[in-house]
Amino acid sequence: MKAYLISIGDELLIGQTINTNAAYIGNALSEINIEVIEVSSIGDDIKTILEELQRASAMADLIVITGGLGPTHDDVTRNAIVSFFKTELIQNEEVLNDIRALFEKRGRKVTPINEAQALVPKIATPIKNKRGTAPGMWIEQNGKIYVVMPGVPFEMKGMMEDFVIPKLSELMKDSTSIIKKLILQTTGIPESALFERLGNLDELLDNAKIAFLPNQYGVKLRITVTENSEEEALKKLNEIEQKIRTKVGRYIFGRGEETLEQVIGKLLSDRGLTLAVAESCTGGEVCSRITNVSGSSKYFERGIVTYSNASKVELLRVNEDTIAEVGAVSREVAMQMAEGVRAVSGTDIGISTTGILGPTGATTNKPVGLVFIGYCDEKVCTAKKFLFGDDRILNKQRATQAALEMLRRQLLGISDEE
Amino acid sequence: MKAYLISIGDELLIGQTINTNAAYIGNALSEINIEVIEVSSIGDDIKTILEELQRASAMADLIVITGGLGPTHDDVTRNAIVSFFKTELIQNEEVLNDIRALFEKRGRKVTPINEAQALVPKIATPIKNKRGTAPGMWIEQNGKIYVVMPGVPFEMKGMMEDFVIPKLSELMKDSTSIIKKLILQTTGIPESALFERLGNLDELLDNAKIAFLPNQYGVKLRITVTENSEEEALKKLNEIEQKIRTKVGRYIFGRGEETLEQVIGKLLSDRGLTLAVAESCTGGEVCSRITNVSGSSKYFERGIVTYSNASKVELLRVNEDTIAEVGAVSREVAMQMAEGVRAVSGTDIGISTTGILGPTGATTNKPVGLVFIGYCDEKVCTAKKFLFGDDRILNKQRATQAALEMLRRQLLGISDEE
Repeated sequence: MKAYLISIGDELLIGQTINTNAAYIGNALSEINIEVIEVSSIGDDIKTILEELQRASAMADLIVITGGLGPTHDDVTRNAIVSFFKTELIQNEEVLNDIRALFEKRGRKVTPINEAQALVPKIATPIKNKRGTAPGMWIEQNGKIYVVMPGVPFEMKGMMEDFVIPKLSELMKDSTSIIKKLILQTTGIPESALFERLGNLDELLDNAKIAFLPNQYGVKLRITVTENSEEEALKKLNEIEQKIRTKVGRYIFGRGEETLEQVIGKLLSDRGLTLAVAESCTGGEVCSRITNVSGSSKYFERGIVTYSNASKVELLRVNEDTIAEVGAVSREVAMQMAEGVRAVSGTDIGISTTGILGPTGATTNKPVGLVFIGYCDEKVCTAKKFLFGDDRILNKQRATQAALEMLRRQLLGISDEE
Repeated sequence: MKAYLISIGDELLIGQTINTNAAYIGNALSEINIEVIEVSSIGDDIKTILEELQRASAMADLIVITGGLGPTHDDVTRNAIVSFFKTELIQNEEVLNDIRALFEKRGRKVTPINEAQALVPKIATPIKNKRGTAPGMWIEQNGKIYVVMPGVPFEMKGMMEDFVIPKLSELMKDSTSIIKKLILQTTGIPESALFERLGNLDELLDNAKIAFLPNQYGVKLRITVTENSEEEALKKLNEIEQKIRTKVGRYIFGRGEETLEQVIGKLLSDRGLTLAVAESCTGGEVCSRITNVSGSSKYFERGIVTYSNASKVELLRVNEDTIAEVGAVSREVAMQMAEGVRAVSGTDIGISTTGILGPTGATTNKPVGLVFIGYCDEKVCTAKKFLFGDDRILNKQRATQAALEMLRRQLLGISDEE
C-alpha cells in the first residue's frame, strides 16, 4: 500500500508552523509497512486542495489529510471534501453529544460554532476526537482510502492511535514481503568519520539499506531490510547491528527512538544510583531532559541552576578564589560544581555544565562556544572541555547532549579515545 | 514570484526527521514577499527527484531544494541536478580550500570523501557553506531560479542568511503590491473563545485576512494585509492590532516571533527586578526557557529543581508538616516554594511549579494533569491551580507556559477574569 500525505494550512507554507504531523504519520505508517511516497503541504484554498486530492488519488492507495477542520472561517478542508466526493453535510448525533460532553467536562458553554462541527460529510465515517471538537473522517471510495484529521498534533495523534492505525494494520495483515527498520543512535562522532569507520558498506549490508541522519545531537543510522518473513528480517537486522557495533559501538547510545535520557535513566535505576545536576550555561536543560522520563524521580534527586557566581559559591560550595583565578568557565569550576552538587545533595553522582553560549560573554582567552562538563562520583572527579559553535540555542542543545553522553560513558566505563 | 520547496530524504517520509527546513525557508521567503505555493517531501531517489523538479518548474519561478548533498552514498541530489540540467561535475578550487580550512580549524584530517564535495555542477554557482563541507548551488535556467542546499538545518540557515535571502531580496525590489503580516501571540484562551470574542471578522478586518494557529502553548493570530505601499500596509496592520487588543488584549503576550521568555526578560530588565525559580514537576524547563534569552543572567539569579521532598524542605524551606498534611502537589507548597526560593536567593520575585505530569503518580484526590504554580514578590504571594491533560511532555510544556504567563500577568498587573 502506497500513501500520500497532504498537510493543509497557510501557516505551513509561510513557516509559521513546523509540520510535525507529517513526520508522526509517516513514522506510524512505515511501522505497519505502508510506504509513504510523498508528503505535501498546501494552503487553505479549496481549489488547491481539490487539485492535490486529484494528484494524490492518481499516485497512492491511501491519502491522509490533516488540517483545516477547525471551527473558524479559515478552515476549508471539510468543504473541499464535500466538493471532491460530491456529497453533502449531515448532522451526526454521536459527534454532537461528544462535543457537548467535552465542553461540560471543561466547564465551558458550548456555542453554535462548536456544534457546527458535528456536521459530517454523508460519505464519511466520523473518527472520534477525544481531545477536541472536530471529528476526523474515514472515507473509502474507488478502492482508495481517505483519512482526514485535524491539524492540532495531539488531536491527530489520538485519532491515529485509537482508530486509524488499528484499522490500517488490520487491512495490511495479508501483505507479503516484510520491511523492517532499525535505528542506531550515535553521538559524539561526525557523519563522515562514522561513514569511514563503517568501511565497505556492501559487505556490511548485503542488500540491506543504510541511511545517515545527522542533526545537532548526533547521527542516527537507519538500516532497512526487506525479507520474506518477520523472522528473517529480524535475524538480518541483528547481524548487521552486531557488525556495526564492532566498528562504532562506543558511539551508539541507543536503538530506535530511545532517547539518551531514557538510556541514562535505565542505567541509573538498574544500579540504584542517584543523580544531582548543577547547571550554569545549559540553564536547566539538562534537568529538563532528565525529567522528561517518567519515573525519573527515583534517581534524580535535585538540580541547581546557578547562573550567578554567588549562587555557585553559596549552593555548590565552589571556591571563590578559584572563580577569581581561573574564571567560572573553567575545568576547575566544572569539577567543583559537580563535586559540590553531589556533596550537598548526598547523591552518588553529580554532573555540571559551565560555558559561554553566546552571542555575548566571550573574553580574550575564552571564545563563544567554550563549555566544560564536570562529572564526579565516589571514585572519579573529572571534567571535559568542548568547543561548540556560535549559535546560543544550538550550543545549549549540544552542551546538554554532551553532558548526558559524558554521564552515559562514565556509567558504562567507556574511556575517551586516544 | 512563486516558490516551490522540495525537501529530499527518505527520513522525511518515514518520519525519522521533522521537516523544520521547509518552515524556516517558507518563513524567510514570505518575509520578502515571495509566495510559497507548495512544499513537498520526497525520497532519496533520482527518478522521483527528476519528476518533482519537472513539476515544480512548471508551477513556480523559484525552486528551493534541500537535502541529499552529504558525503555518503545515500545522498543523490547532486547527481539528480547534473542529470536534470544535462551538465557535468567540475572541481571548484575555492570550495576545496574551504573544506580543507574547515577540517584544519577542527583539528581533523580531511579525507577523499570530504574532498569529493568540492565537485560542483558546471551550470551552478556554488554557495559557501561556513558550517559544513557540502556547498550549496544557485542555478538560473529558462527564467527560473533553483537553489540547492544541504538538509542539515544550521548549514542551510547559514546559506540562507548569508547568500540566498540577500540575493533574492535584491531581485524582489521592484515588485509592486506589498504584503505585510503581523503575528499576535496569545496564551491562556482556547481558539473558539478567541474567535467569539473577536466578533464580526469582516468588520474587524476590512479585506485583510486573519488565521488562527493553535498549539499547546496558545493560539497565534496571523493578520495579512495587501496594500500598494509599505506605509499603507503598516497603518492598516496597526489599526487592526488596536481593535484586536481592545477585545482580547489581556491574552496577547507578544508580537511576531517574540517568545514569552523574551517578553518577561524585557519586563524584568526594564524594571531592574531579579528572579529565582523553584521547579518540581516542570523539572528545569522553566529555567531552560528563561535562559534561552541572551542576557538572562542580568535578571535570572538561580533555579532550583527540587524533585525530592527532602530537597524542597532543605533548599526551599518548605514546611515538612505542610507536605505531610496536604501533599507536595498543593497550593500551599507551591506558595512556600515560591516564597522559599525568593528568600534563599535574595531576589525580588520567586516562582514555582508543583504537579503530577503523569503517566504515574495520580492519587484519589489528585489526578494526572493537576499543577499548581506559585508566585511571590515583596507584596504578593499567591498560587494558581491548573488541570492539564494526560500526556507527560505536553503537560510539562503547558505548565511551563502557564508559569511564565503567570509571571507576565503579575508583572503587568493583569488580574484573572471573573
